[in-house]
Amino acid sequence: MTYTVQIKVMPLKELLDPQGKAIVGGLQNLGLNNIADVRVGKNITLQINADSPVQAKQIAEEASKKLLANPVMEYFEIETSQSA
Amino acid sequence: MTYTVQIKVMPLKELLDPQGKAIVGGLQNLGLNNIADVRVGKNITLQINADSPVQAKQIAEEASKKLLANPVMEYFEIETSQSA
Repeated sequence: MTYTVQIKVMPLKELLDPQGKAIVGGLQNLGLNNIADVRVGKNITLQINADSPVQAKQIAEEASKKLLANPVMEYFEIETSQSA
Repeated sequence: MTYTVQIKVMPLKELLDPQGKAIVGGLQNLGLNNIADVRVGKNITLQINADSPVQAKQIAEEASKKLLANPVMEYFEIETSQSA
């Protein structure tokens, strides 16, 4: 069965996020002053062939560790898969 | 009150996602052959000062339309805010 798995890869909370800061500035220039902080990361959607949601999540975790996330600067969260 | 709002900005389903295709190839080289498709977008977390979750969502939608998403190539989804 094919499962859809969402992986969020975000910059570590301890680190500055210059791209996010630039967006805050841009939004203020557009008149949106209520936005206090912005952080920008990646959202990766995988279609995984697996026997169970648990196995799909394991595969997604392996992919994150091996390729998708840089643990020095980023953390990742795997959103529970939905079958499709 | 400050609300945390997550915006997912993803390439339109009708369009090719070359970055995602490259990731599929990379994962296959690493021995992960169960991954049929990958799409890569952005995940943007906003801290918004607003009176209500509804207002926070409206601000996030305005920010997405004005700056964060390119409607020619991307669609966005706003995940309902949680107060913090």
